[in-house]
Amino acid sequence: MAQRQSCSSSVVLPRGSSPASNDGYVIGVDLGGTNLRLALADSTGLVVARWSNSTVGIKNPHEIVSLICDGAQALRQQSSIQQTAIRAIAAGVPGVTDVDQGMVIATSYLMGWRNVPLRALLESALGVPAAVDNDVNLGAIGEGWTGAAKGVRDFVFLAIGSGVGAGIMLDGKLHHGRGWTAGEIGYMLVPGTPDAPVASGMPGALEGLVGGEGIRAQWQSLWSKRDTVLPKDLTATQIFDSALTGDPLAQRVLEQASRTLAYAIYDIALILNCPLFVLGGGVGMHPALCDAARKIVEERGARARPQLCPSSLGEQAQLTGAIRLALDTVNSRTSSLL
Amino acid sequence: MAQRQSCSSSVVLPRGSSPASNDGYVIGVDLGGTNLRLALADSTGLVVARWSNSTVGIKNPHEIVSLICDGAQALRQQSSIQQTAIRAIAAGVPGVTDVDQGMVIATSYLMGWRNVPLRALLESALGVPAAVDNDVNLGAIGEGWTGAAKGVRDFVFLAIGSGVGAGIMLDGKLHHGRGWTAGEIGYMLVPGTPDAPVASGMPGALEGLVGGEGIRAQWQSLWSKRDTVLPKDLTATQIFDSALTGDPLAQRVLEQASRTLAYAIYDIALILNCPLFVLGGGVGMHPALCDAARKIVEERGARARPQLCPSSLGEQAQLTGAIRLALDTVNSRTSSLL
Repeated sequence: MAQRQSCSSSVVLPRGSSPASNDGYVIGVDLGGTNLRLALADSTGLVVARWSNSTVGIKNPHEIVSLICDGAQALRQQSSIQQTAIRAIAAGVPGVTDVDQGMVIATSYLMGWRNVPLRALLESALGVPAAVDNDVNLGAIGEGWTGAAKGVRDFVFLAIGSGVGAGIMLDGKLHHGRGWTAGEIGYMLVPGTPDAPVASGMPGALEGLVGGEGIRAQWQSLWSKRDTVLPKDLTATQIFDSALTGDPLAQRVLEQASRTLAYAIYDIALILNCPLFVLGGGVGMHPALCDAARKIVEERGARARPQLCPSSLGEQAQLTGAIRLALDTVNSRTSSLL
Repeated sequence: MAQRQSCSSSVVLPRGSSPASNDGYVIGVDLGGTNLRLALADSTGLVVARWSNSTVGIKNPHEIVSLICDGAQALRQQSSIQQTAIRAIAAGVPGVTDVDQGMVIATSYLMGWRNVPLRALLESALGVPAAVDNDVNLGAIGEGWTGAAKGVRDFVFLAIGSGVGAGIMLDGKLHHGRGWTAGEIGYMLVPGTPDAPVASGMPGALEGLVGGEGIRAQWQSLWSKRDTVLPKDLTATQIFDSALTGDPLAQRVLEQASRTLAYAIYDIALILNCPLFVLGGGVGMHPALCDAARKIVEERGARARPQLCPSSLGEQAQLTGAIRLALDTVNSRTSSLL
């Protein structure tokens, strides 16, 4: 993704009330492998300013926190808001996160973090209460708050980008799991996935067929001049686009990805009895994937027939969830002081 | 299972205190497709009397409730306890159960119940507060109370008899799912299961390879005089016994069952991040299955490595859970009156 330094103001998430600036503001943070995005929102969730920066080449947690401080300062300056008006900050991180301890236990090789006390670092650097969670979980919070799962208490948010992860909302609460890894479904086994054990650091069985990098690799391994006029190097979404315009090899790769995804969704729906799956992420939001997977799930009969729909917040899902978490952090800290 | 009319007294579940008969008694009920079992327990959970009866040929809910009343009366007579000393009753049912409404939504073809208000029927017939839940869920409650998962807040109880079901305990509470069907994993798809849609009423893909009836059918379909000296009609546990004594065909069927089970456990562990699986039911408790499945799960690496262990309550798991649920029903009704 290209570096973005622009600071556009935009309005999302009005909750039916006018901005109540007297109640202060919160900052939401979406920390990705290549990009850092911040949004400043008032106490109703109305976003009043945005900021983003590339994180390419920046791995050190202290440097990331320093960059978040720069972003927070830029947001305040844009909005002419005093530091004292900031009530809380919440950050989504691409890795396993102990929400209770505010600790990032592990991220992928891109960042390589292990046991980073991000909440404490943020609180120390910014002087406000902070909260952290896995970015896919924040996507689920976002979709449940104002997105495709608005008002739904049981749903799964599937983030399908280069990898695959799930944010599981049960009875209105995120299910994190005993070791904070619930929803790490990239290694799931369904019919069609290879079942040989996968070496640490390698894409999981499900990711190999459904994740963006896996789909790209599938395309390359199946590619031959006999089967397609398209080039050997295509992204997952380009392959899906080509499937829609009739390329038979692209249709085959799409069919494999959507069948594998549908089986995973079916299994998760059986286990959890969950009525809604929201598909997010650059690959997951492609309508061809969602439509094809929906058809396969529906063919399986009434045993488990969850609804599949694309994310309505798109790449804002995680940041929206971060804002919601920051607002909840204000409320929980306030009530704990009463 | 043979009809049992004997009423033996036995002691289970002492909770470190002496029987406190002044606090009254509860009745636990385990309603199966072929057998009805009741236990009378004091307020500490100590079982003071047991009763059971065949239900073969009895399908009508009113007849079942009438039989439960007979059992309750027999239990009181055995123990010289007045009706007024009974504080609550709880029943486990082999079917989808709406716990909030006390309604059995659907059972298998054996009983054929649809929307039976069992809680109301029991309360009306016995004159005490009642509670109902799915029998596998009660097995999970039992194992978590005094069994193999004692003190564990996140675990899955897998009941593998003729079919396969899961009771899912998350943070100390049963996860029922939005439509009360969570844990109905008999239709799960993993590598090796057929992926053609299954007709309503037929065994699911997972059940076909892991459930007792499925294993029996697998044996029969693979059987030939060339491959085994054993007879063509064997039960799942007989097949597992034969695998342990070296029959190659039995070993092949065991390997297929345990691999399929291991993959299902692996998937559930990934989704829920659940550290413990307790294997119950007549087939699930066979040590050969548990040992072989454990080995396959462990081979898959550190991504999800849940502990597998056999049920420690055996066929008492469901009844033990029913007693615990009945005790909780006393407590909740008492506190709601305060």
